Amino acid sequence: MIRTHDAGSLRATDAGTTVTLAGWVARRRDHGGVIFVDLRDGSGVAQVVLREEDAHVLRNEYCVRITGEVTRRPEGNENPELATGEVEVTADELEVLSEAAPLPLPVDDQIEAGDDIRLRYRYLDLRRSGPANALRLRSRANQIARTVLHERDFLEIETPTLTRSTPEGARDFLVPVRLQPGTWYALPQSPQLFKQLLMVGGMERYYQIARCYRDEDFRADRQPEFTQLDIEMSFVTEDDVIDLGEAIVSRLWRQLAGHQITRPIPRITWHDAMARYGSDKPDLRYGVELTELTDYLRGTRFRVFAGAIEAGGYVGAVVMPGGAAQSRKELDGWQDWAKARGAKGLAYVVLDAETGEARGPVAKNLSAEHLAGLADAVGAKPGDAIFFAAGAESRAAQELLGAARVEIARRANLVDESAWAFCWVVDAPMFERVSDSEEGGWTAVHHPFTAPNAEWVDRFEEAPDRALAYAYDIVCNGNEIGGGSIRIHRGDVQQRVFDLLGITPEQARDKFGFLLEAFKYGPPPHGGIALGWDRICMLLAGADSIREVIAFPKTRGGFDPLTSAPTPITAAQRLEAGVDARPKPEARAQAGTAGPAAPVADPT
Amino acid sequence: MIRTHDAGSLRATDAGTTVTLAGWVARRRDHGGVIFVDLRDGSGVAQVVLREEDAHVLRNEYCVRITGEVTRRPEGNENPELATGEVEVTADELEVLSEAAPLPLPVDDQIEAGDDIRLRYRYLDLRRSGPANALRLRSRANQIARTVLHERDFLEIETPTLTRSTPEGARDFLVPVRLQPGTWYALPQSPQLFKQLLMVGGMERYYQIARCYRDEDFRADRQPEFTQLDIEMSFVTEDDVIDLGEAIVSRLWRQLAGHQITRPIPRITWHDAMARYGSDKPDLRYGVELTELTDYLRGTRFRVFAGAIEAGGYVGAVVMPGGAAQSRKELDGWQDWAKARGAKGLAYVVLDAETGEARGPVAKNLSAEHLAGLADAVGAKPGDAIFFAAGAESRAAQELLGAARVEIARRANLVDESAWAFCWVVDAPMFERVSDSEEGGWTAVHHPFTAPNAEWVDRFEEAPDRALAYAYDIVCNGNEIGGGSIRIHRGDVQQRVFDLLGITPEQARDKFGFLLEAFKYGPPPHGGIALGWDRICMLLAGADSIREVIAFPKTRGGFDPLTSAPTPITAAQRLEAGVDARPKPEARAQAGTAGPAAPVADPT
Repeated sequence: MIRTHDAGSLRATDAGTTVTLAGWVARRRDHGGVIFVDLRDGSGVAQVVLREEDAHVLRNEYCVRITGEVTRRPEGNENPELATGEVEVTADELEVLSEAAPLPLPVDDQIEAGDDIRLRYRYLDLRRSGPANALRLRSRANQIARTVLHERDFLEIETPTLTRSTPEGARDFLVPVRLQPGTWYALPQSPQLFKQLLMVGGMERYYQIARCYRDEDFRADRQPEFTQLDIEMSFVTEDDVIDLGEAIVSRLWRQLAGHQITRPIPRITWHDAMARYGSDKPDLRYGVELTELTDYLRGTRFRVFAGAIEAGGYVGAVVMPGGAAQSRKELDGWQDWAKARGAKGLAYVVLDAETGEARGPVAKNLSAEHLAGLADAVGAKPGDAIFFAAGAESRAAQELLGAARVEIARRANLVDESAWAFCWVVDAPMFERVSDSEEGGWTAVHHPFTAPNAEWVDRFEEAPDRALAYAYDIVCNGNEIGGGSIRIHRGDVQQRVFDLLGITPEQARDKFGFLLEAFKYGPPPHGGIALGWDRICMLLAGADSIREVIAFPKTRGGFDPLTSAPTPITAAQRLEAGVDARPKPEARAQAGTAGPAAPVADPT
Repeated sequence: MIRTHDAGSLRATDAGTTVTLAGWVARRRDHGGVIFVDLRDGSGVAQVVLREEDAHVLRNEYCVRITGEVTRRPEGNENPELATGEVEVTADELEVLSEAAPLPLPVDDQIEAGDDIRLRYRYLDLRRSGPANALRLRSRANQIARTVLHERDFLEIETPTLTRSTPEGARDFLVPVRLQPGTWYALPQSPQLFKQLLMVGGMERYYQIARCYRDEDFRADRQPEFTQLDIEMSFVTEDDVIDLGEAIVSRLWRQLAGHQITRPIPRITWHDAMARYGSDKPDLRYGVELTELTDYLRGTRFRVFAGAIEAGGYVGAVVMPGGAAQSRKELDGWQDWAKARGAKGLAYVVLDAETGEARGPVAKNLSAEHLAGLADAVGAKPGDAIFFAAGAESRAAQELLGAARVEIARRANLVDESAWAFCWVVDAPMFERVSDSEEGGWTAVHHPFTAPNAEWVDRFEEAPDRALAYAYDIVCNGNEIGGGSIRIHRGDVQQRVFDLLGITPEQARDKFGFLLEAFKYGPPPHGGIALGWDRICMLLAGADSIREVIAFPKTRGGFDPLTSAPTPITAAQRLEAGVDARPKPEARAQAGTAGPAAPVADPT
């Protein structure tokens, strides 16, 4: 090392020692013949005193090496804010290791800079303590999770990222293969198929901090490449996977957020989560539960509610405490909010703060009897507002109320930002109706290898819409931070699931061939989970975006402001890479395929 | 868990306990009314005794669960080969968890199967103890390396794998970007540029077990995706990086191969390695050093040698102990061997085992005086053979002798297969002549950011062919297992290197723009290393191929026999992925690039 000490390590006990430090000029203060420099390295900051004639060249972010004696600062000049605040280094020697041009982005924790400039000059951004600490935290998170997993005899195994493309994998990134022109790899959306193959291979306990790829429209805070802590286990039940997930999450939160999670983490069924919170990832830092009013309002003449009830649907409500105090403009704002979500509007009633009398457009349409019992039915008090949603499909109405619940908590300041609320959402449905199909076909909610639970395994065909899976998500403060399932290992059950989904043997072979082939040879019962690592690190870091815990993130649309990737390619590259080559039929014949398959992903 | 015990954990002290085991039928032996089954799980094997009427359905590799009592085996029936050999489990209950079709690949360590069938049915292959143990070893290797790195405060940081493509990166895999049609990402050949940016960002100590990609012709034992333990450090000298590399390697070998590496690992300069071993990755498990004869043979009339000497080139020799005993056919075989390597042949002299007299085609061409002193000059004894190489370029001749040295050791059984011989090859050359250029330009041996050493930093232009770099490789038994360098952090030195390489400012900006931009802002002195993780694990596992330590490797040409990747894509996929889209010029203008750059890789 070209230094003897870390700048941030110096203490009063080092006084009298000659040290060599190397780092960056964080701040310079001229002081009549001497210059004070805050010298910053990875360990922290130390104050260095230099002669004016030596140090006048120094500018912010010059990289320097200094040698000098550690001395106690003159009495009264100590800085208790700084770990090294009792001492300073009086420099005898100064070497400028490299200079810095005027900075496009000040290296200063106090300054708010735009995302574009931060990412373009990410190497300057990372010199700020906040961004640097986010990456340090992530490194520790990796170690903590691995420690838990190795304590439990898990093996870390790398799976391929140049894998098989399938026509169905519309969100796969594709990679042309120069050596087999006309053929392409796909980048995996998850290691799902490979981790299941490892279980068939008897590896029993697998994990990987795995890079995954999804070429999808960039919703808020998505990256084209992302990371998950990917886990699979053999001979386990749902409880085993959940126990492991809790062990990892609770260790992380204890060591990185100083928070002791109470275990077991509460479990809520998917249907309860939808009924009570209108969400499959409920934020449990606050109450504001939904109330179903389908029975209560039966017989109403209010067309919107009556229509939903008659269609066998759902009417429900959620209460905004103190919501009656909102202005007309604020109440109208809720209508715009609902429309922005694709709803027609958000029916409401406000309860007069004094009299408790129900007012507002919906109140006029409800019978006196319905109005009289309403507050009790939904648990509202005078001064509250009650928002309603109704629909022939209960899920859409519940989700609207669920979104309103989150918004209510925000507007009414009900969120304890320092709280951590975890839950498992279990017993997820197996199937849902194909939405754009007239024939009423079924599609798998997770993937077609998700195992039905014991109650449904022998009869999921009787009521596919009610059949439940051994599928589970873990939720933190309304964020889904992981999910997984027990997989089907019995050939007969798999066949019945394919039958229900209308997947013919040919289609199954086409889509999942190599996994089905593997399952002929004594597959063990197995299941797993994938934890969304970017999001978990984001939460632990107290950050607003996963970009804060990624060293070199991309912006929306997958653009990298630092390298300007992606870029056009030249005709020569195109030719070289075989982008336009036609596959040779022989190459396919040679292949000797065991049958192709489509990547399936854990639902994260 | 659906079992109570690991099969391999049962001992005599468990006798009397009722256990539930789950695993695979490894072997079945019928024995008059009872059936003995070797039940295998991840922990090992236990013998299970079943009633014939229950167990007659069982076939090899059925996945089963059994419950029964552990009993001591009858006296004389113990199996001392087996950790569980003192006991057996008498099964009361048997559940077939899944059946197995007839096996295309026997799950049997004794059977040698072809690579194609092994990889196609990799999930069966992995049930064999050899392949499974190779993956277990790799998982442990990861942990051991990480422990060393975390002890030294390294941060694990993930770098992007969807990065910038450059026209020069002819071996980059390319990825079309659906959301910015007409533009492409490249998969990185290494995280080189990003790890250097992290150093500019003040992260100081970075590591990553990184997936890398190279779309190159498949030489023996190459994979299109491979893994390196990638490391970069700031404020270090070459010695610091070497010390860290030794710490990792010695911990790995001690814990995984039971071998204590003597430290410091010997260092040999690149020029010495070429002179003594004819290789920049010498196998030091045996001697058989090269001898330069350029001076000794000066004045010879033998045209081949005289031509090389007059051209300022090189003549050298290597001795094959006992080589005089080779038949004429064997000696001719060496000519074929040399021709297969692209040489014209391999001149030789054999020394009569009795008289020491030199014979063979070359002997006729050498003067009596040259012949008389030859044995002493090269250290040969009667009965040895002496092989010669000569050329105007010393490197090609040395490399031919170096390859002959390896072949001599193999044929003469000089390799101690149980030995481990490590060395560092240091002081590598900075530059080499552009081979196909008339103008005699220079190219960088490593990459253009490799720092010249202290001796050459101020004057490498004087003799570019002799200038040395702070570049180092670590070699084990003739395999390069890692390599790295100290990087240039001074703008003036970088500019002089570019000047020598004939890289104009425009070209530099085009190729390395964003790194050069970053280097304007106080880059620290830094350097690093990349360890070839597949190869290191291969050596530790005692395997012949890196495929043995990769869960799902590809065969030559990048083909995966298991999934049949790569495959053709459909017209719809092509359209969707934007393969044929033309880039929008606006998209580029928007980019606001800080200047593009080409990936450069550590020389592994």
